[in-house]
Amino acid sequence: MTDWRDAPDVRLALNGGYAGSGADLFEAVYTLSSVRRFHPDPVPEHVLLSILEAATHAPSARNAQPWYFVVVREATVKRPIAALYLSAWQQAQRYATTANADADIQDRPGYAEMMRRVDELAHHLEDVPVLILACLDTRQLGPMADSAGHILAPQSAYASIFPAVQNLMLAARGLGVGSALTTVHSIVEADMRGVVGIPAQVHIAALIPLGYPVRPFRVTRRKPVDNVVFFEHWGRTGKE
Amino acid sequence: MTDWRDAPDVRLALNGGYAGSGADLFEAVYTLSSVRRFHPDPVPEHVLLSILEAATHAPSARNAQPWYFVVVREATVKRPIAALYLSAWQQAQRYATTANADADIQDRPGYAEMMRRVDELAHHLEDVPVLILACLDTRQLGPMADSAGHILAPQSAYASIFPAVQNLMLAARGLGVGSALTTVHSIVEADMRGVVGIPAQVHIAALIPLGYPVRPFRVTRRKPVDNVVFFEHWGRTGKE
Repeated sequence: MTDWRDAPDVRLALNGGYAGSGADLFEAVYTLSSVRRFHPDPVPEHVLLSILEAATHAPSARNAQPWYFVVVREATVKRPIAALYLSAWQQAQRYATTANADADIQDRPGYAEMMRRVDELAHHLEDVPVLILACLDTRQLGPMADSAGHILAPQSAYASIFPAVQNLMLAARGLGVGSALTTVHSIVEADMRGVVGIPAQVHIAALIPLGYPVRPFRVTRRKPVDNVVFFEHWGRTGKE
Repeated sequence: MTDWRDAPDVRLALNGGYAGSGADLFEAVYTLSSVRRFHPDPVPEHVLLSILEAATHAPSARNAQPWYFVVVREATVKRPIAALYLSAWQQAQRYATTANADADIQDRPGYAEMMRRVDELAHHLEDVPVLILACLDTRQLGPMADSAGHILAPQSAYASIFPAVQNLMLAARGLGVGSALTTVHSIVEADMRGVVGIPAQVHIAALIPLGYPVRPFRVTRRKPVDNVVFFEHWGRTGKE
């Protein structure tokens, strides 16, 4: 791990010449589609570290950088994590069915297909080349958490980890690596911490599978920007 | 607002030719320094909308896209928001001093300078060309919130807004526009909602000042990636 900084794609980003990586910002943003089927090829270590270093250049409250990233690639560690993840997903699915919790979105185009892919990922998580556990260390949150690891100011606390997660996913995309942002493990978080020895005051904010995608990246479809932007006052669109 | 999609920098991002905006992904990530002093020049509307459209291409739980963005540029609206923000900042500062809440970070290089700049921004927020209120609509969070607007699953809820906020800030950086991620308004959120007529179940997750920066963007300094990345098990660095 002493030579990864010399890899061409990393050197450009680090060595005063962070410009010119060749990855286009808007292309990465617009084509960051969730990837849930991966080629079995490993992700080279220098690519992984380039992705993780990009993650750390995110903002955080008080610039405390209260994050850790646990990289899981060994089958013996992925297997118990995957089992816990599947259990969490199945619990979430049972709840959603019983409580009709997706009633507001289940008629949208793409919903059934998305759920099928999420289910497929949950059943094959141990086959994904890399799992990243993006961790939030509550001991570095100052007044935003107590000494037992309870988050007191969730808005500021999560504003100190999810920008880093988005950087991670965009950097991955820029290097051709697919990812998906998942949080369903929260149901089984204590057990998952145990698998990799994460301290009790450190919170697994996200689990991000990483690898080369089976399908090409595509432009994500979203609500029209005019529908979600107001000017000066709630409800006032730019067309008025 | 019908012609902004024809602006060259927007057309590239939208019209199947999202590639080639000319903004480098890694440069944007590495030089996304917090901007707290702004030129008074306005940000053109097509640039603003390009930034906001990029925000909407973020992931969100259930792909529900539970976000709204309120753009504030008029002095009559900025003024009461700025007054509330200053009040929140002063309350936060008093608390931090009394509770010695920054004891863990106040000896770090750059801390005093950062706090000076945060204080300066709080005193001049109404002079910033654009304020963006990034809102999380709890009515679109399904099982993650109740009908009164209380967030039940903060991790998944905030994972559905802060990636969009990071996209917003990166897109702004890519177009030469500076920003900062702030959440201190949470102390005065109910009053701030009132200023722009935001419904009670909609949560102002972040307040982001936007404008052209006085100082050039610079590469952000962060903890070495080796210090925050573990492999397979907590505490196991790549050097072992």
